[in-house]
Amino acid sequence: MLMRMYDIIEKKKQSESLTKEEIYYVVNGFTNGTIPDYQMSAFLMAVYFQGMTMEETVDLTMAMAESGDTLDLSAIHGVKVDKHSTGGVGDKTSLIIGPMLACLGIPVAKMSGRGLGHTGGTIDKLESFHGFSTVLSQEDFIRQVNDISFALVGQTANLAPADKKIYALRDVTATVNQMSLIASSIMSKKIAAGADVIVLDVKTGSGAFMETVEDAQELARIMVSIGRMAGRKTIAVISDMNEPLGHNVGNALEVKEVIEVLRGNGEERLRELSLTLAAYMVLGAGKTKDYDEARALLQETIDSGAALKKLAQFVQHQGGEPLQVFEPERLKVAEHTLSVTVEQEGYLASCINREVGMASLILGGGRETKESEIDLSVGLVIHYKLGDYIKKGDSLATIYGNDQQKMILAKERLLKAYTIADAPPVKQPLIKAIITENDL
Amino acid sequence: MLMRMYDIIEKKKQSESLTKEEIYYVVNGFTNGTIPDYQMSAFLMAVYFQGMTMEETVDLTMAMAESGDTLDLSAIHGVKVDKHSTGGVGDKTSLIIGPMLACLGIPVAKMSGRGLGHTGGTIDKLESFHGFSTVLSQEDFIRQVNDISFALVGQTANLAPADKKIYALRDVTATVNQMSLIASSIMSKKIAAGADVIVLDVKTGSGAFMETVEDAQELARIMVSIGRMAGRKTIAVISDMNEPLGHNVGNALEVKEVIEVLRGNGEERLRELSLTLAAYMVLGAGKTKDYDEARALLQETIDSGAALKKLAQFVQHQGGEPLQVFEPERLKVAEHTLSVTVEQEGYLASCINREVGMASLILGGGRETKESEIDLSVGLVIHYKLGDYIKKGDSLATIYGNDQQKMILAKERLLKAYTIADAPPVKQPLIKAIITENDL
Repeated sequence: MLMRMYDIIEKKKQSESLTKEEIYYVVNGFTNGTIPDYQMSAFLMAVYFQGMTMEETVDLTMAMAESGDTLDLSAIHGVKVDKHSTGGVGDKTSLIIGPMLACLGIPVAKMSGRGLGHTGGTIDKLESFHGFSTVLSQEDFIRQVNDISFALVGQTANLAPADKKIYALRDVTATVNQMSLIASSIMSKKIAAGADVIVLDVKTGSGAFMETVEDAQELARIMVSIGRMAGRKTIAVISDMNEPLGHNVGNALEVKEVIEVLRGNGEERLRELSLTLAAYMVLGAGKTKDYDEARALLQETIDSGAALKKLAQFVQHQGGEPLQVFEPERLKVAEHTLSVTVEQEGYLASCINREVGMASLILGGGRETKESEIDLSVGLVIHYKLGDYIKKGDSLATIYGNDQQKMILAKERLLKAYTIADAPPVKQPLIKAIITENDL
Repeated sequence: MLMRMYDIIEKKKQSESLTKEEIYYVVNGFTNGTIPDYQMSAFLMAVYFQGMTMEETVDLTMAMAESGDTLDLSAIHGVKVDKHSTGGVGDKTSLIIGPMLACLGIPVAKMSGRGLGHTGGTIDKLESFHGFSTVLSQEDFIRQVNDISFALVGQTANLAPADKKIYALRDVTATVNQMSLIASSIMSKKIAAGADVIVLDVKTGSGAFMETVEDAQELARIMVSIGRMAGRKTIAVISDMNEPLGHNVGNALEVKEVIEVLRGNGEERLRELSLTLAAYMVLGAGKTKDYDEARALLQETIDSGAALKKLAQFVQHQGGEPLQVFEPERLKVAEHTLSVTVEQEGYLASCINREVGMASLILGGGRETKESEIDLSVGLVIHYKLGDYIKKGDSLATIYGNDQQKMILAKERLLKAYTIADAPPVKQPLIKAIITENDL
């Protein structure tokens, strides 16, 4: 029977479930341009109101994953693991986890984007190393993973193009915040990128896309379900994002913090989250059967200095300067600094995390549009965590910048982001929940 | 403050009410092309789910009415009345009402479209008279109304262009069936067309857009409210459309039936509905204060032969052949006929009216696309009404056509439209409700 987009919109409007054929018709038709934008946006708004069943969501994910290239990683030995974070301020766990796993012989074949946001993506951060490049042929990429268990390549243009086109439309039609659409968008790219095991870091809090734990859990469940139905082992960790992760926000500054953690130091919650995510990746890869054993193996890669060496080896393989790993003061950080002192005494009670991100963006550390140039040297170092006691005149943070005016704006923004109160806030646990296939 | 369509879509999605400024921004931006189709269709789908308040609906109506030309009928003496029907099979009341009102000196300055559908619009029907033209200058139009109280002009391209553009988008994005959107679409054109009094014939039943009386009443209430807030006296008559109105469906055939009614004969329900609608127009115009008195005045225009003469005068003024009014056998009807005989005996129990319309469309009596050529000579004469007893071998209808194959298809369609049962159906009253400002 001939399908018509009109009938499919009407069907979804009436809250009926779509067949697999109908969903593929929509995704392929929109991607190849036979279904116009205006019908797709009406459809997406109907999905916003009526939702999608789990089956529809899986079909949508697979249709988007299959809309372009899908990576064949079968030439890589071992169980390929991948991690995805829904995004947060100061999140640099990928660069900590990759070297640790590689030390355990677990292949990390990572494809990364630059993306928009308050700081750069993983690729931007890595470009803080002189000469680092993410332009690798498929062949070199696979060879490097087989050689040193870790490689990172820039996202090719044709990975899940349907998702890219649909997301761009959602972004301008107020149809972003729908669980099935969010879940399928994330999972389609991960599935196309070829990993066998996917560990998801679903952030929740004031700086996260999912503000409540309930929403984060719902999103996590949908993604884990998609993974199971697509034959990819998927585990979701729900983590707190009510304040920046670690102390540093900004590209080179974040790389410095990564090195701190791999040296066995670093901020506690950043270290803890990295080890937790990595442990689930170790379990997913089948390296151990026991969580504590996985943690111990990972800790050993830090304690022995192996993980730090692995980072240097990785940087060197991709054209970067490994000396900067061992002497991080060689990473270029902006020369001008501005101290953000507080006028009030008390407990650091809350943080509007998205405003911290805005401060970084104002300094030039992130991209507002695809064409924006990133300044890798700028950013913030936040010296206190929520619940800490701060005194009048203490420096809450140090701003690193190259433009005095922007630094003053960033300082104002940062001061507005935090509140100080007489009583300490309720301490948020870092890990709020773990969702595996067993929890569905 | 700078408005953004994105924020307006989001606001409506969250079920918030839009301000007048926001609604004008949407309507004007979409009409002039600064708001793209894909944002408008997402917005319309959000309106489908969240609805609009009465105030928003009025703002939308006025924004669309003001988006193009608005007719200034102030040069016409007296209270200008207009009628609108939501459309039904065999509806030819406009051509009966116009002459009657004109006889009473009530100015009927009608602007009409051709439209798509199972039969032609009022203009197409009138073109059954040789030479009839609806191309009139604004000046000639007004002069004719002042001279003979009745003129009909083709709709200018620039009447409520916003409505035209929005409707075209709704038509392909499954966002037609929303009360506020339907009501504002109808009322924007009526308000732009300049009448002081608007009588609405809201059809309900199997051949109508509003299948249930409840829906028809809701739509009527919204339109009457819009009229009140726009300063136009508006009355809605909810009428039955579970079978064709009158016996004849098709352009020239319908004109013949109009003449029958103006001669004092014609099918009872067609005559009754025409007199009812006309009586409310007489009341609206302030010609009488009493409904029965209005009915008596109208009846007199028929009994005296004045209304028939007025139709002839009107036809002549617009270039048509008046002799065809007095000798309707001169109206060209297709030469080939086909009798639709029934195989079963019993009461005519139900009619899927839309299928009767399809039979007319198949014969060539209506337009499928804007480019379709209409055959004015074809159509159907249905000899029985719902509740009539019909015997095996009786002719339910006669098909008039110019193509034997199409006639056979039309016959099959018509037979499927009706059901015959052992018991008579519950008789539907013709007039189901009257909604005036007092009922709000």
